[in-house]
Amino acid sequence: MNRPTVTEGVADTRDEFMTFLIDVDGVMTTGQFLYSEDGKEYKVFGAHDSDGIKLLRDRVNVAFITADWRGYAITEKRIVTDMGYELSYVPEETRQGYVAQNFDVDKLIYMGDGYHDAPILRMCLFGIAPANARKEAKGAADYITESASGEGAVLDACLEILRRY
Amino acid sequence: MNRPTVTEGVADTRDEFMTFLIDVDGVMTTGQFLYSEDGKEYKVFGAHDSDGIKLLRDRVNVAFITADWRGYAITEKRIVTDMGYELSYVPEETRQGYVAQNFDVDKLIYMGDGYHDAPILRMCLFGIAPANARKEAKGAADYITESASGEGAVLDACLEILRRY
Amino acid sequence: MNRPTVTEGVADTRDEFMTFLIDVDGVMTTGQFLYSEDGKEYKVFGAHDSDGIKLLRDRVNVAFITADWRGYAITEKRIVTDMGYELSYVPEETRQGYVAQNFDVDKLIYMGDGYHDAPILRMCLFGIAPANARKEAKGAADYITESASGEGAVLDACLEILRRY
Amino acid sequence: MNRPTVTEGVADTRDEFMTFLIDVDGVMTTGQFLYSEDGKEYKVFGAHDSDGIKLLRDRVNVAFITADWRGYAITEKRIVTDMGYELSYVPEETRQGYVAQNFDVDKLIYMGDGYHDAPILRMCLFGIAPANARKEAKGAADYITESASGEGAVLDACLEILRRY
Repeated sequence: MNRPTVTEGVADTRDEFMTFLIDVDGVMTTGQFLYSEDGKEYKVFGAHDSDGIKLLRDRVNVAFITADWRGYAITEKRIVTDMGYELSYVPEETRQGYVAQNFDVDKLIYMGDGYHDAPILRMCLFGIAPANARKEAKGAADYITESASGEGAVLDACLEILRRY
Repeated sequence: MNRPTVTEGVADTRDEFMTFLIDVDGVMTTGQFLYSEDGKEYKVFGAHDSDGIKLLRDRVNVAFITADWRGYAITEKRIVTDMGYELSYVPEETRQGYVAQNFDVDKLIYMGDGYHDAPILRMCLFGIAPANARKEAKGAADYITESASGEGAVLDACLEILRRY
Repeated sequence: MNRPTVTEGVADTRDEFMTFLIDVDGVMTTGQFLYSEDGKEYKVFGAHDSDGIKLLRDRVNVAFITADWRGYAITEKRIVTDMGYELSYVPEETRQGYVAQNFDVDKLIYMGDGYHDAPILRMCLFGIAPANARKEAKGAADYITESASGEGAVLDACLEILRRY
Repeated sequence: MNRPTVTEGVADTRDEFMTFLIDVDGVMTTGQFLYSEDGKEYKVFGAHDSDGIKLLRDRVNVAFITADWRGYAITEKRIVTDMGYELSYVPEETRQGYVAQNFDVDKLIYMGDGYHDAPILRMCLFGIAPANARKEAKGAADYITESASGEGAVLDACLEILRRY
């Protein structure tokens, strides 16, 4: 298990491309996790989302963010090792500042589902929330997907991004 | 695995603060559990609830209760070891008396979802049930969350408590 | 793992009590099972059902049936070892004859959710199907629970049985 | 773990029988998978589908297809080892050509749920999508099952096939 000890910087993506930054938990997963007596052991990912990201990745920078420290190794296995994308651990409290500092918000598409995602969804170019996001996130988003997280929300988002940009 | 052999007393919380006592199973979890041929091995916890409890914990005592003996070690790992809260094992039959004896019900907010939670929801200051609780619990509650358990019911409850008290 | 090689007979329950015979999969569980590359490893049981059976067991014989051979050891662990009830393995094809031969259908309450449960639900005294049962089972049942399987369907059934008998 | 290195050919089924070709993920499963820090470990299969396939198999060739490489060993255990059917690994990109080359589309019934299944659903004799399929698949299907995947969609499909052919 290789956990970051500090927030990892993502590569500079301030080039001609837009960036699609995705909060993993509750967007790529159902948001639920399975606990055994040894701790957080499983997350539930859905079927259609990697199809969506493949459609998009030649035209948009795709990166991932997570605030889940205890489940970091699970998320890293899925996003970094198996799917091949960048993943940054950023706690909820520092997330808004982290996004402002590391991304050009005028070229940033952000997808998040939580209470603390609302300000980021507001400050980016295009904010997306899954159908089952917290109402605080849905109220701040520009686009709410038809599908819930873990049931194709990210594919919905990717198709909408391709349609718009 | 360190299971209690008798009902554990929680610390005396009869001070100036209110206490928010949460029944773990069906409130912090979906209520479902995964069984293998070795027994009860996993419970399903949700995404948003620890965000809610963090918003609340400086102003309200937060404690947890469970009637699930076979899954106690799972619950203990999540609530005590990982989240850092007190957890008491109290069987359904003795739960009402336990609450009356250990808490000042005029300063008690209780959240439960089961058939046996109805009398406790009635006797406390403010009773909360998740959207997917048993109808017996929902009929006895003062407030029913918009979200189901494992999908943000406890965050809903925390926001409502902050709004009211 | 101790699997039966033939259909096990349940104890003779043709006494003054009624019998509540419950098909485990899709009634006590969600009907879904988790497969790894080693096979069928987990079933999902719900929260409220053992509360219901406890309310009933002094007045009604309670027994369980399963047609799932590959998941038998999981079911046995939950129903026999942990809950303490009788469990019989009976394949779908022979189930109707098995019930006719082993139970007094005039004193039999049966709860099932599958395509092959329809004739048994019709021939017993009182047939119950969970809200999410196959339409063939729901069409043959005398009572359909408000809750889905794994979400309290068996507690609903137990409360209805107590109300009627 | 015995994974195919290239697309496996299925047996020639161009005989007097029709073939029912089923995309496993999202049709026989809920489409979701459980990830641990070691990777893709579980898929969720549903209760009623093998009942349906048993009703059909004497009259129709039944075969399975999957585009999921990382979960191949799980799918193989369920479909090949435990259920006894043929399974072919075919990536999304080459799937349409694979189907055209290996099956007589005038005798082919196809069931799929994904974005890339739409053209195959259109080109076969009878295309079926589960209730929870992607809208792209549902728009291309001749028949949409009442049940969702993992909740009896394949049994619905089998009953419809028996009714029609």
